[in-house]
Amino acid sequence: MNNKKQRHLLQLGNFSWSSFLDSLTLSTAAFLVTLSCWSLRVDAAEGMWTLDNLPRAELESKYHFEPDQIWLELVSHASLRLLPGCSASFVSPRGLVLTNHHCIRRCLEALSTPRRDLLSNGYLAATPASELRCPGMELNQLESTTDITAAINEATKGKEGEEFSRAYSRKAAELNEVCLHSKDDAAVRCDLIGLYHGGRYIINRYHRYLDVRLVWIPEFAIAFFGGDLNNYSFPRYNLDAAILRAYDGDRPVVSTSYFPVNRSGPAANELLIEAGHPAVTQRELTVDQLKTLRDNKLLRVILLLSEYRGVLQQYSKSSRSAARYAANEIYSVENRLKSLRGQLASLQDDTLLTNKVIEEGALKNFVFTHPEFLEARNAWQQIATAQEKYRAIGNEYYFLENEKGFLSRYFTIARILVRGAAEHSKPNEQRLPEFADSMRAETENVLFSPAPIFPEFEKVKLSWALTKLQEWLGGENALVNSLFNGLSPDALANKLVRETHLGDVDVRKTLWEHPGRVSASSDPFIRLAMMVDETARKTRRRYEIEVEGVEQKAGQQLSEARFAMRGMGIYPDATFSLRLSFGEVQAWQDNGRDIEPFTYVGGVYERNTGAEPFALPASWLKMKSDDLKNLPFNYVTTHDSVGGNSGSAIINRKGELVGLAFDGNIHSLGGTFGYDADTNRAVILHPAALMHALEKIYKADELLNELETK
Amino acid sequence: MNNKKQRHLLQLGNFSWSSFLDSLTLSTAAFLVTLSCWSLRVDAAEGMWTLDNLPRAELESKYHFEPDQIWLELVSHASLRLLPGCSASFVSPRGLVLTNHHCIRRCLEALSTPRRDLLSNGYLAATPASELRCPGMELNQLESTTDITAAINEATKGKEGEEFSRAYSRKAAELNEVCLHSKDDAAVRCDLIGLYHGGRYIINRYHRYLDVRLVWIPEFAIAFFGGDLNNYSFPRYNLDAAILRAYDGDRPVVSTSYFPVNRSGPAANELLIEAGHPAVTQRELTVDQLKTLRDNKLLRVILLLSEYRGVLQQYSKSSRSAARYAANEIYSVENRLKSLRGQLASLQDDTLLTNKVIEEGALKNFVFTHPEFLEARNAWQQIATAQEKYRAIGNEYYFLENEKGFLSRYFTIARILVRGAAEHSKPNEQRLPEFADSMRAETENVLFSPAPIFPEFEKVKLSWALTKLQEWLGGENALVNSLFNGLSPDALANKLVRETHLGDVDVRKTLWEHPGRVSASSDPFIRLAMMVDETARKTRRRYEIEVEGVEQKAGQQLSEARFAMRGMGIYPDATFSLRLSFGEVQAWQDNGRDIEPFTYVGGVYERNTGAEPFALPASWLKMKSDDLKNLPFNYVTTHDSVGGNSGSAIINRKGELVGLAFDGNIHSLGGTFGYDADTNRAVILHPAALMHALEKIYKADELLNELETK
Repeated sequence: MNNKKQRHLLQLGNFSWSSFLDSLTLSTAAFLVTLSCWSLRVDAAEGMWTLDNLPRAELESKYHFEPDQIWLELVSHASLRLLPGCSASFVSPRGLVLTNHHCIRRCLEALSTPRRDLLSNGYLAATPASELRCPGMELNQLESTTDITAAINEATKGKEGEEFSRAYSRKAAELNEVCLHSKDDAAVRCDLIGLYHGGRYIINRYHRYLDVRLVWIPEFAIAFFGGDLNNYSFPRYNLDAAILRAYDGDRPVVSTSYFPVNRSGPAANELLIEAGHPAVTQRELTVDQLKTLRDNKLLRVILLLSEYRGVLQQYSKSSRSAARYAANEIYSVENRLKSLRGQLASLQDDTLLTNKVIEEGALKNFVFTHPEFLEARNAWQQIATAQEKYRAIGNEYYFLENEKGFLSRYFTIARILVRGAAEHSKPNEQRLPEFADSMRAETENVLFSPAPIFPEFEKVKLSWALTKLQEWLGGENALVNSLFNGLSPDALANKLVRETHLGDVDVRKTLWEHPGRVSASSDPFIRLAMMVDETARKTRRRYEIEVEGVEQKAGQQLSEARFAMRGMGIYPDATFSLRLSFGEVQAWQDNGRDIEPFTYVGGVYERNTGAEPFALPASWLKMKSDDLKNLPFNYVTTHDSVGGNSGSAIINRKGELVGLAFDGNIHSLGGTFGYDADTNRAVILHPAALMHALEKIYKADELLNELETK
Repeated sequence: MNNKKQRHLLQLGNFSWSSFLDSLTLSTAAFLVTLSCWSLRVDAAEGMWTLDNLPRAELESKYHFEPDQIWLELVSHASLRLLPGCSASFVSPRGLVLTNHHCIRRCLEALSTPRRDLLSNGYLAATPASELRCPGMELNQLESTTDITAAINEATKGKEGEEFSRAYSRKAAELNEVCLHSKDDAAVRCDLIGLYHGGRYIINRYHRYLDVRLVWIPEFAIAFFGGDLNNYSFPRYNLDAAILRAYDGDRPVVSTSYFPVNRSGPAANELLIEAGHPAVTQRELTVDQLKTLRDNKLLRVILLLSEYRGVLQQYSKSSRSAARYAANEIYSVENRLKSLRGQLASLQDDTLLTNKVIEEGALKNFVFTHPEFLEARNAWQQIATAQEKYRAIGNEYYFLENEKGFLSRYFTIARILVRGAAEHSKPNEQRLPEFADSMRAETENVLFSPAPIFPEFEKVKLSWALTKLQEWLGGENALVNSLFNGLSPDALANKLVRETHLGDVDVRKTLWEHPGRVSASSDPFIRLAMMVDETARKTRRRYEIEVEGVEQKAGQQLSEARFAMRGMGIYPDATFSLRLSFGEVQAWQDNGRDIEPFTYVGGVYERNTGAEPFALPASWLKMKSDDLKNLPFNYVTTHDSVGGNSGSAIINRKGELVGLAFDGNIHSLGGTFGYDADTNRAVILHPAALMHALEKIYKADELLNELETK
């Protein structure tokens, strides 16, 4: 996916903080790619490899493994991407899909009602007819990858700044159109991806599964046993799994490529392959960029999320319905907060920053002693200047353009309508990228989502966000003052939510289909989105030209120098595209304590206190048995794994599923900036526990049969 | 005050986050004192001078001012300290005291009822009989200062580590007793203070005014116009003033030393003296200590306060009584949060840290080239090691010993009772310092405070704090698990608050007077405090020996070297004792924008939107007039001013009050670590606005007469 487009796609849907891919990380990650050098020693486990550039020599020497074309095709077709930020895979020939429970929380939220609380109670479709369609869910299956580096370079050759940007966008839109029409299939998605920081461009074509149905999920209490307290940690006892089924024309998809479940799981020292879609890494940022992250970007989000968490927690105590409305948002916020705090901690670690300084010194030395990289000499200073510019406009960008001052699904909808009306009147290639023709389906997916909106909850979020808008942009900001027009944040939020009609999907459809009516609409969210638009766009433009554009160009120069210095046998930063990581089960040491790599089902019974988040559901309590003492539950591996890998299959060399990735340990959060083989661990669900639960606890015999069909 | 004792006094009262002096800052500031070198150039405005060591040469050359003994006595007797963290001064011969509105919020909270909302509506005592006594309020007036350096040094000579600590404590307790009995007066307070990091020790003897009554306050809406949005900023339009009266034997105190109010305020370039009690500065920390603050201590508090703020804000929306219960806490949290974020920002500023590194390099060079400071060569490494120890135990110290995991007045009471019972059975000098005989009155002040406790609000605070206890100390912490005993934080908080009887002052009295009954008490908070005690004391002991003790000893060595290098014409770090700062009215530049030093009453009418926090009270709206356009309201000065200076008098050389300090600009928050003459500004209320309000808006004719009596 074109990373800019990817960001904007997510912007369309950013009524929640939940996405792994939100613009915080992407804004600096956009196009910043390439090799990692944090852990300077080479380790087989490090790396998120594209399928056409695997570390073959190492795989051969360490594991005697030579993946052939058939194996690679199996892996690429059985692996799925679950939008907006997870991985998944086919696990049966009739379209069964395995992913994490936490990856489909929006679906559960949308399908739940006061009478049917899927999150708390879990679900098992007794018959095919009772498999429940998840509104707005999309799975992507990779069909082809095309290298378009030459075409892009030809189009942008000799161009700079805005001219470069425009030429790039035009060519990208053109190539995208070509891809979209390369196959007679409406359900196609094409993503243009800049790998290696623009060292290589590809287009991935995916088949889109848009009819995805819920087959089985366990209760939240066992899926997320230990709750936020145990998130990003180990030992763990989580059945963080969900089984879906992809449909096509109301019939289960025939999925000839799939990973059969192997109950026995991984063997000691066995090579395990993680096949998934790591979202974002930032292993090539300069020291200045890392400091901006540490002292500005991360800190801002962490402060805001902390406060928002307090608001949500207290709100959810006000009534049972409040608890239900807020549950998913609380989960997302806590997950994100922990992840970002882990990232911040890794940036505060002197070791990491010192290593980055050393690396940067080596690259500088190379650049200054090789006259062919004359231009790159200024790259660091240009990036440093871009950081200053960012610090000056970052708050406006974040609160106005990035919508964080208006946290509400209504505002997201209003902005799509307001911008859509303006953009669709322009030629395709002159529009904001998220309004290109090729994005129309996604946009409509967000805009027309039938997922319920709870006005009371929207009011809570918006009211809080407005206080932050006022606080961070300052009481003297003319735009902010005109938005409030003498009302308090609370009063303004109440008024907006009370008077809007955008909760009605038909109202949205009418305005979308008659863009001329948007500017005359009296809907208060539409009015608000219109008032904000000019300043927001201006800030975005400044951001794109003065910050992102400069970082992109300078970063590309550094990347070329790095290639020259280190050669090509390196992996690109994560881009939410299919990658393989190679690792094995391995213990680690935490503060001098050995952490064993396996937990057992018996352990969860020992840790059950009966109080959240350590309360086992009734179904589990009923099936307590001494036999479970040695049944593996979760385990850890050395895979180089980050957000987006949630739901990735862990397979053996035979292509059998021997685990389901659902988390990393706390050290893995530093993986955003570099991989540390000593401490980074992925946290995996063992298939024995999954199959045990399906069989003994959930009595899902049919499902089990289907999973065990060879 | 002995800084350790000061900390513990505050610990006794730390059911709220409001104190300027909480242990976060004090824990590292304890005994860390001396000269500032951040801004390397010498500037008259820099410095918080003790009265016996004024920058006389500079005052003489720049202002031709030579303060004599009479002037110094006037200043030291008219200046008051308002516990726990403010300044004040006598402004009439009949005991009228001027301080800030924000300094007496606890009093307003305690005196308010659903029918009488002093915070919102303000108050004016129509007759002397209607002056309302503030429960628990204490004003201190300095009577004498005694140098005890020789006695302390003699007692601790040649001692190290614990032995040093014990000898010091014993001598300190002894000297304190001598001071307490040096005058036949029950209302005496003696504070032992380590100035210059132990370079000098003094005992200050204060007269304590314990009967302090409320005479006048304006409405919150004008006292804090602009609210948290405008806190620590300028331009400002705040009538942040309160008038109290000190009583003795039910009659107004005769205060022959006072600062008469001079309506005309300061003249251009006039020397202005700020007389007040700056609480804590940390201008002598090593780079390692500053990094611990930046990456650990400050960050932890800021994250927690952010979340707590969200909880409080959302809770306060749940009902009118909730809003009233939480108002003061919200104010305190927001104030503190903004202040700490300012401190963090100053530590993230490369300039500050770079300067500190340079300074440290110069001192190292001096130490390593002067063999007489052989011991000091290891000081930096010792301090660095102490930081590592701190990082290992900091969370336990904070949540268990420092009570932050049990945020509730009930717990504070329970801990006093539990520890009091244990400590009072020991000889005086072996007790924890906060239970020494000399501290009994203060402790009882906290313990028997009749300020109302709202169980519902205590539940909200405690329930949240317990979730943080669990989160930060980890789900595998045995003590924490045993405290919860299978209950959720919410359930535990409910149970504790429902079942406790500590809301009843008589119950506390009985247990205090019969310490033998404490251990048999079935009150759940007493049980909780007992369960926590052993681990908490152990952590405290480790903290005092491995962190604080090491920092104290090593810091003292560095301080001695610094004296030798730079000479004695320097001021000590702030210690919440009387200091003078010398400055004048001065504009400054913010991001290239000139900030004019005065605001005018007309401006507040222009900024009134009618919506909080920009809503003028009715009393002000009624009195709008064009004449007010040029009536000065607030102004800024160059005084070197930090928390604790709130309520300080700004006087001219004649001893007339020409301003009331109530805040600093955002840059002044970095003043904790160093003074920057270009940007640090104190924010002052002009007496013209005060007198105008008393006369025209509040029709406080009697009060006005009294203030204007010469």
